[in-house]
Amino acid sequence: MSKVVERLAELAELGKYEGGINRGLATPQERKARELFARWATESGYQLTQDPIGNLFARRNGSDPAAAPILVGSHLDTVPTGGAYDGAYGVVAALCALEELDREGTQTRHPIEAVAWVGEEGSRFPIGCLGSAVFARLTSLDEAYALHDEAGVSLADALASADGGLLDLPQRGEQRVAAYLELHVEQGPVLEAAGVHLGVVSAITGQIRYRAVVEGTSGHAGTVPMDRRSDALSATAEIILAMEAAARKEGGAVVTVGRLVVEPGGTNVIPARVSFSIDNRSPDSDKMEAVEVAFHKTADDVSKRRGVRVMLERLDVHQPTPMDSKLREGLHRVAKIMGQNALDVASGAGHDAMCMAKMAPAAMLFVPSIGGHSHVGQERTADADLELGVTALTRAIVEVDK
Amino acid sequence: MSKVVERLAELAELGKYEGGINRGLATPQERKARELFARWATESGYQLTQDPIGNLFARRNGSDPAAAPILVGSHLDTVPTGGAYDGAYGVVAALCALEELDREGTQTRHPIEAVAWVGEEGSRFPIGCLGSAVFARLTSLDEAYALHDEAGVSLADALASADGGLLDLPQRGEQRVAAYLELHVEQGPVLEAAGVHLGVVSAITGQIRYRAVVEGTSGHAGTVPMDRRSDALSATAEIILAMEAAARKEGGAVVTVGRLVVEPGGTNVIPARVSFSIDNRSPDSDKMEAVEVAFHKTADDVSKRRGVRVMLERLDVHQPTPMDSKLREGLHRVAKIMGQNALDVASGAGHDAMCMAKMAPAAMLFVPSIGGHSHVGQERTADADLELGVTALTRAIVEVDK
Repeated sequence: MSKVVERLAELAELGKYEGGINRGLATPQERKARELFARWATESGYQLTQDPIGNLFARRNGSDPAAAPILVGSHLDTVPTGGAYDGAYGVVAALCALEELDREGTQTRHPIEAVAWVGEEGSRFPIGCLGSAVFARLTSLDEAYALHDEAGVSLADALASADGGLLDLPQRGEQRVAAYLELHVEQGPVLEAAGVHLGVVSAITGQIRYRAVVEGTSGHAGTVPMDRRSDALSATAEIILAMEAAARKEGGAVVTVGRLVVEPGGTNVIPARVSFSIDNRSPDSDKMEAVEVAFHKTADDVSKRRGVRVMLERLDVHQPTPMDSKLREGLHRVAKIMGQNALDVASGAGHDAMCMAKMAPAAMLFVPSIGGHSHVGQERTADADLELGVTALTRAIVEVDK
Repeated sequence: MSKVVERLAELAELGKYEGGINRGLATPQERKARELFARWATESGYQLTQDPIGNLFARRNGSDPAAAPILVGSHLDTVPTGGAYDGAYGVVAALCALEELDREGTQTRHPIEAVAWVGEEGSRFPIGCLGSAVFARLTSLDEAYALHDEAGVSLADALASADGGLLDLPQRGEQRVAAYLELHVEQGPVLEAAGVHLGVVSAITGQIRYRAVVEGTSGHAGTVPMDRRSDALSATAEIILAMEAAARKEGGAVVTVGRLVVEPGGTNVIPARVSFSIDNRSPDSDKMEAVEVAFHKTADDVSKRRGVRVMLERLDVHQPTPMDSKLREGLHRVAKIMGQNALDVASGAGHDAMCMAKMAPAAMLFVPSIGGHSHVGQERTADADLELGVTALTRAIVEVDK
C-alpha cells in the first residue's frame, strides 16, 4: 500500500460516526487528526509551526533564505458524516510530496510548507474556510474566537481545551506566501464521466444563498374550487422548475432547493405558506444573476396569476474566485509531461484556495470522485488516482518553484 | 338576537382554543356541548334518547304511530382549531325547526327527530363520520370502541369516563329512518361568489387519499451539474403541477398536496426523497380517475427523464354519494316558495349525510360561508343566512313529511 493510501486509512479511523466520519473543528477527534499530521511531519524531519487559530505548517527549507514559502495543503476537519478524502487527501498528499522531493533530492529555491487548515467545513462553528480566512486576514482572530457552537461553547474556549484545543507547538512567524497549491477530490461526477484523471480548476464557484417564502391562502381541500385557490405549494413548484430551467439553459450554473417546509401541513388543507432555501452557484456571476432573474420573473407571474405573495432574501453572496492563470498553465504543463489529459473544471464547492487567492497566486488540482459522491461515508477515490495526484502535486511544486 | 344565533354563540364558548374551537369526541368540552343540546331539547319538551356511541336524538312525535321518523341534524364536534358553525349549525337549526313547527302548530305525520351525531370530524379518534357510520351500521360498535386516540385512550374508555363520556339518558330503541335532512355551512366560496343564499347538494364528493414518494439521488449542491441530477423535489414539482392541470381541465375536481417532506433537507444537498400526501376529490369518479392518470403519466415521464423512482399508495377510497333526487326536488320547491334561487352544488367535504344515504333517502342544504372559510376560527355565516336556513329546513321537513 502506498504511503498516501495508508495515511488516509489511518486518518479515517478518527471520528467514525454513523457510516461516515465526524471531525468538527476543535473536537477531540479533530485534534487527534492534527496530532497525527504533526507526528508524520516531525518524523520526516520538517519544522512544525502553528498559528493562533490552529493551522499547522510543516516546512521543508529552500535554498534562498529570502524567498517566501510556497504553501501546499488543505484541511483535516469533516462535515458531520463526511468522507475520508475531502480535505484529508490534500493535507496528506502535501506531506507525501515533500517526502518525494526528499527522496529525489530535489532542492527548491522557495521553502515549501505542507499546511493543514482548520475548520474548512464550518460544521461545528458557523463559518466555512475559517482557518485559511484567518490566515489570509479576511476574518479577524477576535471574530473567529467569538464564534459559538450550537452548545454555546466559544471557539476560544474550544481551542483552549486540552482534548480539542491547540497543540503544544512553536508559533508561526512567517506571513509571506509566494503561491498556494491545493489538491482535492472533485466531489462531483465530471472527471469520472469524462474518463480523465486530473482536473485543473478554472475558478471556484460563486454562491448566493437565499431564503424564499411563498404565501398563499389556506382552505379546505374539498370545498375550494381549483380556480379560487391561492395554493402556496403549486406556486412554489412553478418557481422551482423555472429556476431549474434557467440554470440548465445557462450551462455551468447549478441551483438547488434543498430545504422546503409546507404550512400548515395537513393532508386536507390547502398550503398557506411554503418557505424554502435556494443555493445558486456558478463560476460566472452573470449566470447566477440569470437564475435570480428567472426566480423574480416567475414570482411576478404567479403573484398575479395565483394571488400569492413571494418574498426573497439573500442570505450571503460569494463572488466567483478565478484561479491564477499562470499557475493553471503550469499545472497543464505538468499533466502533459505525465501523459495526462487534464480537464479544466470549475469547482462547485468552496475551498481554502478561495481565501488564499486573496493573498497570493493560487491554484487547485482535482482527482476524480467515484460516482461523484462526497460529504458522505461512501466518498471514494481510486488508489491509483490518489497516487497520481501526489505525483502531479510534487511536479507542480517544482514547476511553481521555478 | 334570534334563537339560532344565540345558541351558536353559547356553543362557541365551549372549547375555545388558539383562536378557534377544539371539541374532539368524548372530551369534556364536547360532552358539555352534548349536555347543552340535551338541556335545550328537554326544555322544549322533546323526548331525548341516546345510542351506545353517544348520538343524541330529540323526538317530536308525529300523528302516525306506525311511521318511521324523519331525522334532521348534524354534529357537535370540531376539528382542533375549528369554527362555530361547521356541524353545530345543523344541530341547532334542527332543534329550532322543531320549535318552529310547535309555534306554527304544524302536525307532521312522521315523528321528526333532531339529531346530534358524535365524532364527525375524526379529530380525536381516527375515523370521520363515526356516529352516523355506527348508526347506519357501516362501522360496528366493537370496531368503534376499539379505536384509540394519540394518547392511547380507547373510545370505549373515553365514553365510559365521567367528564367526556355518555350522558345519563334512555337508550334509543328505534332503528328505522324515513328520510334524512342535513343543513350545513358550505365551507367553500361558491354560494357567496354566486350571490345566492341556499345550496341544494347534488352529491357529496368522492375522495381518494394517497401517500406518494419520489426517490432521486442526493448529492452536493455545488458539484453535481444540472444534467447529471436526479432531484426528487424538481420531479415532485412536475407531478404537482400536472395533477393541478388535470383537475382544472376536468372542472369540478379538486386535488391538494397539503403535506410534503423533503429529505435529507440540507440547504446545500440535492433532495434525495420527497414524500407527500395527495387528496383527490370529485363528485364524479371519472374525474378522480383523470387526476390519478395525470399522476401516473407524469410519474412515468419523470422516471425516465430524471432517473427518479415514483411510488403511489392509495390510503382510502370513498366513492361519490349522490343525494336523493326526490328530496332534492323538494328542497328546490321549498326554496322557490321562499323566493330564493337555490344553486345545485356538490359538497367537497364529507358529511354525516354520506352515511345516512346508505340507509335512507338523504339530502343536504347549504348556506353561504363568508370568504369560504371553514375549519378555522374565522369561519362565519351571516345571521340572516343562518335564519334563512332554519326557515328553509322547517319548510323542507313539512315538504318531506308529505
